[in-house]
Amino acid sequence: MPRSPKRSPCPVACTLDLLGDKWTLLVVRDLFCGKSRFRDFLDSPEGIATNILSERLARLTKSGLVETFASPAGQGRAEYRLTKRGKSLGPVLESVKDWGLANIPGTEARLQPKV
Amino acid sequence: MPRSPKRSPCPVACTLDLLGDKWTLLVVRDLFCGKSRFRDFLDSPEGIATNILSERLARLTKSGLVETFASPAGQGRAEYRLTKRGKSLGPVLESVKDWGLANIPGTEARLQPKV
Repeated sequence: MPRSPKRSPCPVACTLDLLGDKWTLLVVRDLFCGKSRFRDFLDSPEGIATNILSERLARLTKSGLVETFASPAGQGRAEYRLTKRGKSLGPVLESVKDWGLANIPGTEARLQPKV
Repeated sequence: MPRSPKRSPCPVACTLDLLGDKWTLLVVRDLFCGKSRFRDFLDSPEGIATNILSERLARLTKSGLVETFASPAGQGRAEYRLTKRGKSLGPVLESVKDWGLANIPGTEARLQPKV
């Protein structure tokens, strides 16, 4: 699933090959929060750039963590949702959220996903 | 703790400001495994570059997650260990490890830390 070749057989290293950056888990967070439309991800407070969002959604889709579906309105761009495999990232997201809340002053849970 | 200004008050975003890259959690993994000497981190199979390792150790130290201590042999460079706050990353590391083992073929637990 991660881009080959692997840096090592270590599951931490291999997961970071896929998720180890400042944006990918934020897109996953937004998907857990129910966002599905490209423009809705752009509206998140961190201000992700269009090209970064496009690349991350494409990579998550290629990795089988995200899938597209036709807009319920029957028009416009495809929308995005987590696959079953993508939803399995819930505990990772939860542990990161919990650590931040406990260790970084000024963080707030109100924007957090329900995983 | 993370470099200011925050991208948002979201604890996921703030944690990624500190840990969101391909290397930082591997250094934390090695510290959990008991590595303490600069050259021992370099020996890990992912082949971290010297300048990246130096920057990550300095940043983790500045963030209060890692501290240096005098080499028990009484000579040579200082060594590194996790602080109490650094050890609180155990559940994050564990969730990332578990996800990789369950979702990325070819990963192995033998190189993993005991957290």
